[in-house]
Amino acid sequence: MYSDILSAQTLVLYFQSVGIKNIVISPGSRNAPLTLSFTKNPFFKCFSIVDERCAGFFALGMAQQLKEPVAVVCTSGSALLNYYPAVAEAFYSDIPLIVVSADRPSHKIDIGDGQTIRQDNVFERHIGYSANLKQDVEHARNAILNNGDSQETIQKYNTKELETALNIAFKEKAPVHINIPFEEPLYGSVETSKVEITGVKKPIKADPKIENLQELSSIWNTSKRKIILVGVNPPNTVSAEVLEILANDDSVLVFTETTSNLHHPNFFPSVDSIIAPIEKSENSNELFKALQPDLLVTFGGLIVSKKIKAFLRKYQPKSHWHIDSKKAYDTFFCLSNHIKVAPGYFFESILPKNCVLNSQYRSQWNTIKNVYESKRDAYLKQIGFSDFSVFNQVQQSIPKEYQVHLANSSTVRYNQLFPMDASLKVYCNRGTSGIDGSTSTALGGSIYSKAPTLLITGDLSFFYDSNGLWNNYIKSDFRIIIINNSGGGIFRILPGKENTVEFDTFFETTHQHKANHLAKMYGFSYDKAASEKELINCLTEFYETSKNPKILEVCTPRLENNNILLDYFDFIS
Amino acid sequence: MYSDILSAQTLVLYFQSVGIKNIVISPGSRNAPLTLSFTKNPFFKCFSIVDERCAGFFALGMAQQLKEPVAVVCTSGSALLNYYPAVAEAFYSDIPLIVVSADRPSHKIDIGDGQTIRQDNVFERHIGYSANLKQDVEHARNAILNNGDSQETIQKYNTKELETALNIAFKEKAPVHINIPFEEPLYGSVETSKVEITGVKKPIKADPKIENLQELSSIWNTSKRKIILVGVNPPNTVSAEVLEILANDDSVLVFTETTSNLHHPNFFPSVDSIIAPIEKSENSNELFKALQPDLLVTFGGLIVSKKIKAFLRKYQPKSHWHIDSKKAYDTFFCLSNHIKVAPGYFFESILPKNCVLNSQYRSQWNTIKNVYESKRDAYLKQIGFSDFSVFNQVQQSIPKEYQVHLANSSTVRYNQLFPMDASLKVYCNRGTSGIDGSTSTALGGSIYSKAPTLLITGDLSFFYDSNGLWNNYIKSDFRIIIINNSGGGIFRILPGKENTVEFDTFFETTHQHKANHLAKMYGFSYDKAASEKELINCLTEFYETSKNPKILEVCTPRLENNNILLDYFDFIS
Repeated sequence: MYSDILSAQTLVLYFQSVGIKNIVISPGSRNAPLTLSFTKNPFFKCFSIVDERCAGFFALGMAQQLKEPVAVVCTSGSALLNYYPAVAEAFYSDIPLIVVSADRPSHKIDIGDGQTIRQDNVFERHIGYSANLKQDVEHARNAILNNGDSQETIQKYNTKELETALNIAFKEKAPVHINIPFEEPLYGSVETSKVEITGVKKPIKADPKIENLQELSSIWNTSKRKIILVGVNPPNTVSAEVLEILANDDSVLVFTETTSNLHHPNFFPSVDSIIAPIEKSENSNELFKALQPDLLVTFGGLIVSKKIKAFLRKYQPKSHWHIDSKKAYDTFFCLSNHIKVAPGYFFESILPKNCVLNSQYRSQWNTIKNVYESKRDAYLKQIGFSDFSVFNQVQQSIPKEYQVHLANSSTVRYNQLFPMDASLKVYCNRGTSGIDGSTSTALGGSIYSKAPTLLITGDLSFFYDSNGLWNNYIKSDFRIIIINNSGGGIFRILPGKENTVEFDTFFETTHQHKANHLAKMYGFSYDKAASEKELINCLTEFYETSKNPKILEVCTPRLENNNILLDYFDFIS
Repeated sequence: MYSDILSAQTLVLYFQSVGIKNIVISPGSRNAPLTLSFTKNPFFKCFSIVDERCAGFFALGMAQQLKEPVAVVCTSGSALLNYYPAVAEAFYSDIPLIVVSADRPSHKIDIGDGQTIRQDNVFERHIGYSANLKQDVEHARNAILNNGDSQETIQKYNTKELETALNIAFKEKAPVHINIPFEEPLYGSVETSKVEITGVKKPIKADPKIENLQELSSIWNTSKRKIILVGVNPPNTVSAEVLEILANDDSVLVFTETTSNLHHPNFFPSVDSIIAPIEKSENSNELFKALQPDLLVTFGGLIVSKKIKAFLRKYQPKSHWHIDSKKAYDTFFCLSNHIKVAPGYFFESILPKNCVLNSQYRSQWNTIKNVYESKRDAYLKQIGFSDFSVFNQVQQSIPKEYQVHLANSSTVRYNQLFPMDASLKVYCNRGTSGIDGSTSTALGGSIYSKAPTLLITGDLSFFYDSNGLWNNYIKSDFRIIIINNSGGGIFRILPGKENTVEFDTFFETTHQHKANHLAKMYGFSYDKAASEKELINCLTEFYETSKNPKILEVCTPRLENNNILLDYFDFIS
């Protein structure tokens, strides 16, 4: 069954042709032609989510896992604007989120009709493409509105626009917006579609080549100090063989972030623990110069660590290569090459040409790593119950193979300080680094995951996306751990800390809320821990199979957390 | 105390000069220079709200009541995008919402820094003005970034941009966006500001004149059938004397909507109850022709009733005048004059030139009004407990003088069917008619209201804006009545209704949630009614003075509501 509106048929059949299966629909009447056509077609798997802000992030989480486009569909008006936070995250994280908005026909815009805004191009600043479809002739009361175009011309135009938008979504992994105007009546349906979409296939990006491999090899092989720095990066992008070679190259330091999903005992997973002691050292300039690389190779998305960014901006490498088939940010203001291939392919191309260099680079910094690692262990033994101890304890507790989502911003920063088990798959919305959709993203990510999903989040991030829990697709093995420090604890760590009411109210935004009521409302089991012992107790059962999903809320002492974190950096220095 | 950043001082002092007092701040670090300067200056009244979507609507509600600009201030990144639903509502409802976003300096955009998006002009489609301020020279590490401009030039530029933006906010009642880049360090402060803002006053729009009063008078005085149709309109815009004259003019029908805040026994407050019977009548064409006006005069914002819109689009008047000092929508595709003055001023100008016309227009339709009013009473006596009966009962219960906020969309539509007490002040976000910010808007509206505030909302609208309750400024006399029909009941009324799982899931989006958990979480008293008797009981105490704000949840029978509403229109026909 299809809507009797041809443009709706075209869109739905086009989606089917390129293999966009997952459709997240928010309620509305203007989008009825799409909702009808998607939900009555068994090819599609449809999800219903009311709050479009959550729907956007839910679809984004799903698209991120599937590595393929997922669509959101909404009615006309401000509904569409609520997708914007997810659209911007998708834009910066290269996730193919397809936004489909039903609209009124253009002559009904800005004439005082309800639920009507200027929808075309509304995400212009952060979108891969905005396709503004045209209305079918038979539904345009006045054909002049379509410049007198025939139905055939309009059909062609719409198909072309869909092709352009979806090509960009598939090939560039960019979010795209498709705006589609419908005139009443909206609920008519037909048994068979009038429209035929033929010869359309899933768009696939051609494999690119490395143009100047010879030149790059020569730089690689003469750089005695190479840093490879990896930001947000999906699991399994680089083979174990490549990692092994890099890990054993004396001229290479591999700095990984928790979000990089790359692991090797010889890698350096906690950048901040290396940089912080240098910052505090009397001969920091000398030490930083010893660490300054000749060549910096980066891949993956945004870097969490502010310290490594500050270091590399000041002590710039001679060359900075960024490896990404799509884009390269000049994060350190010294980008020399954007190598437009997949990171795995790059290393497989360059490593066979690798010369063994005589270098002390890795061994030198490895010694320092060993020092901070043992100091960290010692520090953990002497501190009290706090964000610092809890994040460590929580991280140790996660069963193997879990999909782990980290919220912004304390959560991902704290997690960087401790080693993450190599079997875990770690995600965090670092495209815009917002606190606005962590829960919804994690839920979206859990849908097709065989392994259970754990979300670790702070209290502000959790309450911000509380509507994320208003979701009928929460699996019983979904787990949430909230580290509740009664406000934005990160602001106590930042340089502006004051002991004033203004600070507590407008920076830290302290509160007394707990998650128990929301847990009850949305059918989660709930447990709370406010001491190490309670936390150990809770964690023993937390990951066990259960009928309901679970929330564990860990309440940490608001006024002590920041000192314990800041003292840590002193302690390891 | 001020931030030591000059552009922050400029902005804050400029706001003070023009008298923008109310500042709604969301937490962040990038906006620290503004937060510091606003919160330490006793001129400003600052509010802290974490979720920017709610903060935007909260500020909008306040600005709507105060009839003056209110500012929201947020950090960089996706935070800003969460304001968009409120910005669009402000744009279409002519509310001076001032969005201030802290940003990174331009050379830090799109280079992979966290919480960084393209903020400048991001609301381009729905904004009065976008002011993109420049960074101070002393904070721009590289002066070339400012084209080598001196601090004086930049200061002048920023002041000019602020002037332009705030002029538009004050004079055009439009939302404006001010984006202001800051470089670290962000937390520095000074005792006295370096910047001086002098000679700046609150911008006031000059009183306009009616150019062609003679011509208009002549049309007015020869139109034997005049309809005055009033949409969303603040209380007290037209004097009682003017209303009295219009109410007693035989050639004038005044159609008011619940949101028009205009009352007179001779007015026609329930448009749908007049139009619906005609639509169903066998001789509808003849009756519609009898109702068709010669002259249509409209003022106020958007019209809720779809029926009157459909009628006037088909049976167009010879002339349509819209009275509004700012804008006129061609809602009925026959707009002949946009008269750019305040409605009160217009009537005071034209009525002294009024001729008494011999017309049956009003008396004829008054008879019909009397019929449906008595039929409505009869119908109410025979129906069971349902949305229809509950909205009537709730409306009767509201104490005099209350500020009443109606959510979209069932709520405002049902309320149109019953007479509203003339002392009530009624508001509804009809600019975009979204369900996204009703609770936050009502809370913002309550802040400076001497009278208590009541929000009447549906369940979807209430849960959508559940974070609205995460608010430290809720007064104990704030009241919420939720009509919970377990989903989007409106979709059962629209033409697409089906008895299928797909319909329940994707259109009606049925759920079993109740508000009791949220009430507990946010410190509201909570009561529930699921029958007429229970509702009567609850309402007797509901408005009494209390320590805590209150929620009353009324649970109506999901599957019966739509029939009872649709049968109503049959019954009165």
